[in-house]
Order: sequence, then structure tokens, then C-alpha cells
Amino acid sequence: MTLEAIRYSRGRLEVLDQLLLPHQTVYIPVPDADAGWAVINKMQVRGAPAIAIVGCLSLAVELTTGRQFETSAALLAHVRQRLAHLITSRPTAVNLKKAAVTLIELAESAESGGGGVEKLRDSVVSACEAMLAADVADNRAIGEHGAAALLSSAAAGSPVSVLTHCNTGSLATAGHGTALGVIRSLHAAGRLGRAYCTETRPYMQGARLTSYELVHDAIPATLVCDSAVSALLRTGRVQAVVVGADRVAANGDTANKIGTYQVSAEAGQRTEGADRVAANGDTANKIGTYQLAIAAAHHSVPFYIAAPATSIDLGLPSGDQIPIEERPADEMLQLAGQRVAAQGIEVWNPAFDVTPASLITGGIITEKGVLPAGEVSRIATL
Amino acid sequence: MTLEAIRYSRGRLEVLDQLLLPHQTVYIPVPDADAGWAVINKMQVRGAPAIAIVGCLSLAVELTTGRQFETSAALLAHVRQRLAHLITSRPTAVNLKKAAVTLIELAESAESGGGGVEKLRDSVVSACEAMLAADVADNRAIGEHGAAALLSSAAAGSPVSVLTHCNTGSLATAGHGTALGVIRSLHAAGRLGRAYCTETRPYMQGARLTSYELVHDAIPATLVCDSAVSALLRTGRVQAVVVGADRVAANGDTANKIGTYQVSAEAGQRTEGADRVAANGDTANKIGTYQLAIAAAHHSVPFYIAAPATSIDLGLPSGDQIPIEERPADEMLQLAGQRVAAQGIEVWNPAFDVTPASLITGGIITEKGVLPAGEVSRIATL
Repeated sequence: MTLEAIRYSRGRLEVLDQLLLPHQTVYIPVPDADAGWAVINKMQVRGAPAIAIVGCLSLAVELTTGRQFETSAALLAHVRQRLAHLITSRPTAVNLKKAAVTLIELAESAESGGGGVEKLRDSVVSACEAMLAADVADNRAIGEHGAAALLSSAAAGSPVSVLTHCNTGSLATAGHGTALGVIRSLHAAGRLGRAYCTETRPYMQGARLTSYELVHDAIPATLVCDSAVSALLRTGRVQAVVVGADRVAANGDTANKIGTYQVSAEAGQRTEGADRVAANGDTANKIGTYQLAIAAAHHSVPFYIAAPATSIDLGLPSGDQIPIEERPADEMLQLAGQRVAAQGIEVWNPAFDVTPASLITGGIITEKGVLPAGEVSRIATL
Repeated sequence: MTLEAIRYSRGRLEVLDQLLLPHQTVYIPVPDADAGWAVINKMQVRGAPAIAIVGCLSLAVELTTGRQFETSAALLAHVRQRLAHLITSRPTAVNLKKAAVTLIELAESAESGGGGVEKLRDSVVSACEAMLAADVADNRAIGEHGAAALLSSAAAGSPVSVLTHCNTGSLATAGHGTALGVIRSLHAAGRLGRAYCTETRPYMQGARLTSYELVHDAIPATLVCDSAVSALLRTGRVQAVVVGADRVAANGDTANKIGTYQVSAEAGQRTEGADRVAANGDTANKIGTYQLAIAAAHHSVPFYIAAPATSIDLGLPSGDQIPIEERPADEMLQLAGQRVAAQGIEVWNPAFDVTPASLITGGIITEKGVLPAGEVSRIATL
């Protein structure tokens, strides 16, 4: 069964505690918005889409099971107050802020519509549930489009083995995943040979999280060091490389302003780079993506980006405009609290890199379909 | 001052305890062959050349300071017995076995020459000392040739920054190092901009050992993740990539049979691959070398191998004949005794890879000079 990092039914929410992964699998009950604030703040849930959805669903549970309100005005005030609190859970929870604005506008509209308390409550709860459903549906569509694209160049009935990088699965999204969603869809269709995932130094998302998801779903999978990818591709065992590009807003200012969000870290907070697709198809993603693309091109293995259409930033002319964010040295120098490098060594620890469209030889897989990287501006017409 | 992993003067030997690196710098006295056997067996010293030299020098110290012999025949018998014991210190200490054979032949010749006990002792001790001197001299010559080659394409007076991989320094050789020797020679000449070294997953020789050497020698240096190399090269900060190829015997059977040696490991023994240069210039080296070469070629940065001439195996037609040795999963799954990946994930953990001569765009740097990779067979005439 596919890993669920977010378990929801009306009146009930549980989230997988990502701080305990990959060692322990523990779900935390989230009975109200205070509990939602806490799991986000403690980084037990991570990833911009997941944070937004968990925050909103925690409010939905509270509205369903919590105290009742006499008037719709009182309920509206409560919704406003709870959302204002929730968005303080993480200073850079951009997606959660956007979702909160959407919910408040919807609630104001419902309240002024005069349908009463029950109707207002139902409209807010339903909107939260729709966010979860839409995100999972988008990822499933990405998976289906991606699987079809990969299979279109495979011999009839023959399996396809796929290499991926970092974590783009149920642990980083509302469910199913983007690049890992393509792998899940291929596996569900009985056409996956094997998934290969990189360790993804320095934060080891591949070793810790993607491996966990693949083992959980019983998908045949092999972990490789980041440095072993070219040797692996040379063996001919991999038919495609598929990686993600985290979803971001689309106003095009700077990488940090737009896409910044934070993920769990044992020591301190961690701001991830703004991974996005520029109008010319250049794509910012986790450090190492560019190197994978070069290795794939060298071995004539198609290279794909899998990401929601919202990741395509038509306001950004090319990847050259994306500054490379550098991360603290300790992320490289320490692992699980232990020092792994010599004292006194300097480090260069960029959070992400930019892969030029020319190396994205397979294309950009979105929920609307697969586009050649050089034609991503067509996304507006799909 | 340059790091000395082996400190020797006649009658006195100390070796740097590599099991304590990079956290502690402790030298162990080695007063006799029993102590030599112990430091090799415990893997406090590692690397085929270093093991051979420490084994022989431990005998030299014992002969200089230990008990006296009445007859040259008795001394010869003692030398034979001690060397037979020393070679049991590590099952695959091939270089030490070869050195032992050489010493026994020399001792037999000296004994039959009838020069007496003192002359026999002096000839054995001097031969051991000559091994140390020759290895360091070869590495210094590699450093000088390499530095000259790198500077020949640099603008007059401008510094050259170099990326390297794994550990090829004083900790892996008798001193100075091969690829790291090139960096040391550039630095000594005042022409090194900065050394960049990879972490070198899974065993982290770059993070643990090369970083330690660079910090020790006060060489400006930056550690990068293996996955960040392409992003680094794209910045234009690196003018050359120089990596090693461990020295190996030259009979050409199989990679394992010829070049196998072991290095220290917290848990259990570790057999390294047989890293060598084939007659067509293909080079086997630490996993990740091939990927570095692809990245360097993509960015038009020259890529060099630095290795003793004995690494060139004219009996091996091409790299295709070199099998890829796979290492135990735990080397990837655990780090500093902690598990770093999900339970149940399979791994592919090749010890080394083969870089085709076509990607070795700079050439092969040896103590005899620098050869284009496609012309390594000329080494026999240098």
C-alpha cells in the first residue's frame, strides 16, 4: 500500500512524524489547529505543500469536532484567528499563508452569503478537504503522464528502470509524489523494472526518505551514492532519470523570496532553495540535479523534470537569474550529530543548482501533460 | 609543514594512527617488527605503499636497536623469520610481500658475499630506508611534473585551483602524495589558488583524510559534496581536476588478484579495488572518478590522473577487462556507527569505476613525466 504521510477523514487527522524517519514509523494525532501548529513548528511534517494542507486540515478537524458557535460572524472570527495563528508556525511557510488567504476570502464570502453557521463551517471544511484532494490528484496526473512518456519509448511490455534524486514522494507532497509519483505509477502499471535513488548528500533525503517510501511500498529499489550514478548509467540498467522541481509561486522576483520553505533538521532550521522552472525551461532543483543531467546526457539516457505546472515561472526568463543559496557548513560536516570531516576545513554547500533546458532531454512532466523543456511557456495554453 | 604519516630516523619509527583521524592526531612508536605487525594489522596505517614501508622500517628499527647476532647466518635466519611474520599482518598486503621478497633476496646475497654480520645488517637497514626515500622521491617528482603541466596552460603568474577526489596524500603513500602531491607542489610554488576536495562517499576519505591533510598543511581548501562538483565547475573556479590511481602490480590477471589491498574500517575489513591504468590509458580509480571526468569534460576543464609509473599495466589492453568490485552494503548504510538509510533498502556499492582514456583530457602524470592518456605505453621508453 502506498505510504500516507497525511491520513485524513472528516473529523480525524494524523501525520507521519518525519523526525523519527527512517528509524520509526509513528503517526501523530492532530485533533485541532493548536496540534497542527505544533507538528508544523516541530517540523514533524515538512515540505511546502504538505505544511499548507496539514495546517488547513487541522483547522477543518477542529471545526468539525470542536466547540460550536452561535453565529456565523463568531465562527468567521474564529477561523480568521486560528489561521493567523497557524501561519506563525513556520516563518517561511509561504504555501500555508497563500492557503490561509484563500480560506479567509472563501469564509468571508460564505458568511456574507448568509447561509448560517452550519453552511459556513461546511464550506471551510470542504475547501480544506479539496486542497488535499487537488494536490493528490495533480500528483497522480503527473505520475500517469510521466509513466506514459517513459513507456512510449520502451519496447512493448518491457520494464523501465528509473533513477531519481532527493525526495519527491508522499513525504514531500500531499501524497503519491511528483518524480516518485512517476515511479509509483509505473510500478502500479506493472512496468517498473527497478527504482534507483541517490543518497542526496548532504541532507540524505534519498537515503533516509525516498528509500523509506520505496521499501514501504515494496517497490524494487536500489540506493546508490551520488558519485556512483555515472558508473550505474554506464551499465545500461537505467532507462530514464526523473527528478522533481519543488512547487513555487510564480511572481518571479528572486529564488529566495519566491520559493523559500523549510524542512526538518535535527539542529536548527533549514531553508530550502527555490526550485523552479524558468520560462526557457532551465530548472532549479536540489544540488546534484545538474550533475545527474550531465551524466544522463553523456549516456544518452533521457532526463525528465516532474513538477506541478505552478512550478513553471513564466516571469523568470532563464535560470541565470536564480541565485545559488549557500547552506550552513554544519549540514555537511555533521551527520546524525557526529562530525564526519576534519576540523577546520572550509566547505561550499549550495542548496540547489540550475539545470539548463538543453540537458532536460526527456521533458517537463506536469499534471497537464509533458512538454519539451524548451517549450514550457506553452503550459499557459494547456 | 607537510604532514608526515611515517616519521623515521635510523633506530626510530613512529606512525600516525589513522584510526583516530580526523579527530585526534596521535603518533604510535614502532620499536620492532612485532609493533610493525600490530599497527598494520589494526589498520592504524593503511594504503599498500605505506604498509610495505612501515613493515620494512619496523624491521630496520629492530635490527638497529634490538638484540645482536653472532653470525650472519643467524641474522639472515632472523630476517627471514621476521619478514615471514610481518606479511601475515594483512592477508592482502601485496606490496609488503613483494618488498619482503626483495629484502630476503638482498639479504641472501649479502650473506653469501661474506661481509659479516654488520655488513649484512647495514645492507638490509639501508634497503628499507631506500624504499621510503624512493617512494617519497617518486611522489615529489609526480608533484613537480604535475604542477608544471597545470601551470603550462595558466596565464603567467596566475594561480591555479584544483579539484581532487578521495585521498592520495601522505596518508595513502610514504609521503607527499600523488594527486595531492601535485596540489602540494603547486602550493609550495606559490601558484595554488585553492584546493577543492570531494567528500568521497561512501567512505568519506575526502572529508576525513584529504581535508585533514589540507588543514594540517595550511593549504587553502574547500570541501564539496560529490554531487556539487558540476555546479562548482560551472562557476569557473576550478582550472584542473587531478585524481589518483593507486599503484598496483603489473601482471594483468584480474583487478582483485592484482591490486587488492585493505584500508581501515571501524567495522570489519575493507578491500579496495584494483585501481590502475590500462595500456590504452583507461584508468580504474575510486568510485566517482568517472563522473568527475564526465563533468570536467562537459565544462572543458582538463582532467589528469597522477600515479606512479608502476600503476600503468601494459599487460591490460583496456579498462573493459577490469571487473567492478562491489562492496558490502553497510559501508553505505552506516556512518560513524549510525544508520543513515532506511531499513530494508538494497544498495549498489561499487568500490571503483573505470574512466576511459578519452575523458582523461589532461594526461597521466607519473614520476617520469606527463603522458597523454592515449600514449601511456610510451612509459616503457621514458
